[in-house]
Amino acid sequence: MNYVKDGAAIYRESFSIIRREADLSAFQTDLARVVVRMIHACGMTDLPQDVQASPDAASAGVNALLAGAPLFCDATMVANGITRSRLPQNNEVICTLSDARTPELAAKLRTTRSAAAVGLWRDRLAGSVVVVGNAPTALFHLLDMLEDGAARPALIIGIPVGFVGAAESKAALAANRLGLPFLTVRGRRGGSAIAAAAVNALASEEE
Amino acid sequence: MNYVKDGAAIYRESFSIIRREADLSAFQTDLARVVVRMIHACGMTDLPQDVQASPDAASAGVNALLAGAPLFCDATMVANGITRSRLPQNNEVICTLSDARTPELAAKLRTTRSAAAVGLWRDRLAGSVVVVGNAPTALFHLLDMLEDGAARPALIIGIPVGFVGAAESKAALAANRLGLPFLTVRGRRGGSAIAAAAVNALASEEE
Repeated sequence: MNYVKDGAAIYRESFSIIRREADLSAFQTDLARVVVRMIHACGMTDLPQDVQASPDAASAGVNALLAGAPLFCDATMVANGITRSRLPQNNEVICTLSDARTPELAAKLRTTRSAAAVGLWRDRLAGSVVVVGNAPTALFHLLDMLEDGAARPALIIGIPVGFVGAAESKAALAANRLGLPFLTVRGRRGGSAIAAAAVNALASEEE
Repeated sequence: MNYVKDGAAIYRESFSIIRREADLSAFQTDLARVVVRMIHACGMTDLPQDVQASPDAASAGVNALLAGAPLFCDATMVANGITRSRLPQNNEVICTLSDARTPELAAKLRTTRSAAAVGLWRDRLAGSVVVVGNAPTALFHLLDMLEDGAARPALIIGIPVGFVGAAESKAALAANRLGLPFLTVRGRRGGSAIAAAAVNALASEEE
């Protein structure tokens, strides 16, 4: 069959189509670059209408990664979607969902494993980049921890997907009273690929 | 914050919302169950309008997995999204993208690593379940191999995402002249989460 086989050309053409079709006018240049990559991950040029971010989100993420911040991910698929070679400081990518302590903690707290796993991030949250791409309960639990005084991440990428709690947890992130830098996608859409794509965009300017 | 923390209840409520909102009338019962899980993975109840499958897709997938078929995935995120505990025969999940031979093969064939990696599946393709959730070039390359006489998989789940070749590769899969059992999502939408969700639905009836 006849199709484009040059990976670099495919990327270039993809980003060119996205920039032609998507309305990025609501975003500053640095954030627009992130949104382009999020669109690339899901194939939907109408995603910008649901993207919401604090004004400092992109710069906070870029600077944190340059400073060597670890990345805390709620799901292995998120961790897996982060392209290690793009990370500027060989930043650590951490997912505690399969940590041996997580199931017991979940039972004790009467919550999901995804939420319990977030509790294990507490000691290293300060200045980190948090990436929630799957579980609304992870994002809710994180916000609860932060309201209770846990150290502040540099950026929260909160893009869980789904039908129960996803829209609500993302609305709570966007409305947080702590002034936390955040990036989210309103509503039900989201997921590990979109969340990881945001990290990949922040990690390197290379398209 | 006040939110549902019971994982099983979240699943039940999610699937109930999906079945209430999505139009599944075009699908037989076994395929409808797969589509529900695909919707769950992306948060979009309008996905069914783009889902296309051969009549035997669901039964071919279920039977192959029950018979112990290996799963060939084009991306580690796809492999990662497959819930191992749902697989009926502890089926092997294989992704050759990081195989040591892949870069050299890609250079030799002047194609992407994703496409070259598919070439390494050749000896074990017969009766397998192929899951493409990322790269259109992987799906194109697979179809070329099959037209050239490679052994037939039991089912091809072909759901790459994106702007260059995604829609075209999926249309080629749906129009294949070999009568290959397939499941796809027309157009640009797709991705590793949707593809892995289809596998997870075929692997076990448990919701």
